[in-house]
Amino acid sequence: MDPEAFLDIANQVVKLKMFPYFDIAHCVLCALHVREDLGAGATQFSRKHPLACWLSYMLVVFAGGMVASALLAEPILAPLKNTPQLIVATLVWYVVFYTPFDIGYKVSKFLPVKIVCSAMKEIYRCKKVYDGVTHAAKLYPNAYLIMIIIGTLKGNGAGFTRLIERLIRGVWTPTAMEFMQPSFYTKSCIVASIIFILDKKTEFISAPHALVYFGIVIFFVYFKLSSILLGIHDPIVPFENLMCALFFGGIWDSLARILGKGQPKEGDAKDAKKTN
Amino acid sequence: MDPEAFLDIANQVVKLKMFPYFDIAHCVLCALHVREDLGAGATQFSRKHPLACWLSYMLVVFAGGMVASALLAEPILAPLKNTPQLIVATLVWYVVFYTPFDIGYKVSKFLPVKIVCSAMKEIYRCKKVYDGVTHAAKLYPNAYLIMIIIGTLKGNGAGFTRLIERLIRGVWTPTAMEFMQPSFYTKSCIVASIIFILDKKTEFISAPHALVYFGIVIFFVYFKLSSILLGIHDPIVPFENLMCALFFGGIWDSLARILGKGQPKEGDAKDAKKTN
Amino acid sequence: MDPEAFLDIANQVVKLKMFPYFDIAHCVLCALHVREDLGAGATQFSRKHPLACWLSYMLVVFAGGMVASALLAEPILAPLKNTPQLIVATLVWYVVFYTPFDIGYKVSKFLPVKIVCSAMKEIYRCKKVYDGVTHAAKLYPNAYLIMIIIGTLKGNGAGFTRLIERLIRGVWTPTAMEFMQPSFYTKSCIVASIIFILDKKTEFISAPHALVYFGIVIFFVYFKLSSILLGIHDPIVPFENLMCALFFGGIWDSLARILGKGQPKEGDAKDAKKTN
Repeated sequence: MDPEAFLDIANQVVKLKMFPYFDIAHCVLCALHVREDLGAGATQFSRKHPLACWLSYMLVVFAGGMVASALLAEPILAPLKNTPQLIVATLVWYVVFYTPFDIGYKVSKFLPVKIVCSAMKEIYRCKKVYDGVTHAAKLYPNAYLIMIIIGTLKGNGAGFTRLIERLIRGVWTPTAMEFMQPSFYTKSCIVASIIFILDKKTEFISAPHALVYFGIVIFFVYFKLSSILLGIHDPIVPFENLMCALFFGGIWDSLARILGKGQPKEGDAKDAKKTN
Repeated sequence: MDPEAFLDIANQVVKLKMFPYFDIAHCVLCALHVREDLGAGATQFSRKHPLACWLSYMLVVFAGGMVASALLAEPILAPLKNTPQLIVATLVWYVVFYTPFDIGYKVSKFLPVKIVCSAMKEIYRCKKVYDGVTHAAKLYPNAYLIMIIIGTLKGNGAGFTRLIERLIRGVWTPTAMEFMQPSFYTKSCIVASIIFILDKKTEFISAPHALVYFGIVIFFVYFKLSSILLGIHDPIVPFENLMCALFFGGIWDSLARILGKGQPKEGDAKDAKKTN
Repeated sequence: MDPEAFLDIANQVVKLKMFPYFDIAHCVLCALHVREDLGAGATQFSRKHPLACWLSYMLVVFAGGMVASALLAEPILAPLKNTPQLIVATLVWYVVFYTPFDIGYKVSKFLPVKIVCSAMKEIYRCKKVYDGVTHAAKLYPNAYLIMIIIGTLKGNGAGFTRLIERLIRGVWTPTAMEFMQPSFYTKSCIVASIIFILDKKTEFISAPHALVYFGIVIFFVYFKLSSILLGIHDPIVPFENLMCALFFGGIWDSLARILGKGQPKEGDAKDAKKTN
């Protein structure tokens, strides 16, 4: 491929306008998420408690912005001030939950539709991570941890509001904590935030910004599609296991067990490598 | 009644000073609410855990202001900066919980006292809803949803902090979510917020502002009194059922069931109409 | 002791630099707290969920600042902007949880080390309470309750974030509410906040500021050491019981019981005196 044409595409991806098509794709997937989270009782719940259903869906749609605002002392409700976006989100919710014969739901579940929406959502996610890192860097130019946190929350906010989202629907699942078993989205958002920070704040990355951005978009979309189509859910796990073995006790624990005087009982090291 | 005299009364109601009498009425009802929420163990709890009792009561008294502040990135503790109001609230709490022979509690439970307090609280509630809508409109002149949310939260904050209020007392009831079964207060505050917005932002309502305000005060007081005296708890339910049937699946679900290919099982439509 | 030399020491204590030694002592005790809160499964948990472990530890370390920021509409993440402090905190966490053969943990559990760290932490706590009161007084010069709340939260933040800290680790213990059974730290922070306010805002205390500050430092350190070494856990309890008996029902309830017409059942008064 011609490098200049490639850079050209990258530049266009950076400048993509998100409203309304990418917003619609994002909303469709959020509505599907809420509906699937409700399980078998989804239809009945949406008829009995439309307000709770709508509020928890809105929380999922605007999760990233709201959580990031809360942590940066900006108005939590500010993401709701954009009335056209609100109307689009509400229409999507209505279509997925209440159309006659469940046409809306069935169409949005249809694989090709879902693939297109997922790919668009990943492009949107990348923009959100970048916006989050930029915003945090403006507020705290030297606080790298805050940039990573805000970038990650903007990119995968819904993962962190799951407890509240379910609480709005009257369900409390304290063990479903994102931090305990971070999903691939969280981990890839952390990686993307770090790359954006390296690109912005240091000289390590010499490629032009548009290429870095486009690379992360491709990375996000590629792994999302391979997750839907091939069932590969977390390509970061091997690196995690390596890191856990090197830095978080794996090797030392094994050594201690061999020498017969460490606390870990049998089977611990195996468990340690299984999950993060 | 003479229309001019009526307008005169309306104007006076708009300008009513709230401190201290309306504050006292509000505090008395909040203290009764906390005490009744504690159930049979109220006396014992108030003796064993005065701090938790006082804090959860304070949260109920200042719920609206605190929640609205939290959502608008204003200091959550700001409602506590008014020291005279704090002292009044604390005195009322002391009188309801700790007077000898429980005189304070018995007096405030006495029906005529309760009726007067309730009527005053509804007047106060109307002022809070109006203040909330005005405040939000100043911050976000075009964000109608934010105005409705802030108006409703200011008007019926205690309904939304119930989970936290109980958590302070060591009780966790995740299913007691206001959004699941919105109370009449929540629904009437939503309606009042919408009317205030229509009055403020559009030309639909040609009546003078004082009349609109007074009308909502009368609506609040009337339904509160009919709830206490006649046991009519929710006059909005019929409209809700109609809306649910029209927009949230009722009719389409029935049609689908008749045609024999919708998902809803038998009995769903009936349930759907029962509650919001 | 020479009064001038004493005042000199007091002045030096007031000006003590906290970073990095006092920060390290604080972090060591926080890490021990998290590790002990995890109980027998601590090693295994830290291997399986390093992210949740680190986040809940960070919350404990920065609890006071974060909660106070949240309540005053300042950025919750602001305490994380100090990168050197973050690195020190992370190193301490790593040493306590992951050093080979658990050397870090064993050293920090060693009594003399723990005593030194505890004493340093109490000096730090006093500074935090003072900073909290000063900060709140600058924002709200007449809101004494807000000053007390912020001073107490800054001094014993970890006590109030325990629920969230455990929730990050996937454990939900709604009954472990600080307000229900305030610990000695909370109570002594309240007392210290009140003394600082009296010193700052009124003429009741004629001693120089440095002496007042030093007196509170001695009070904190003395009771901490007597708690570790002598097992005296709460020297404030007798005053509390007296206050409960006088103001919160004790005497009146007994009187009512003697007269045979109060609600409290037998055994209530006894319970009332046992705990706050």
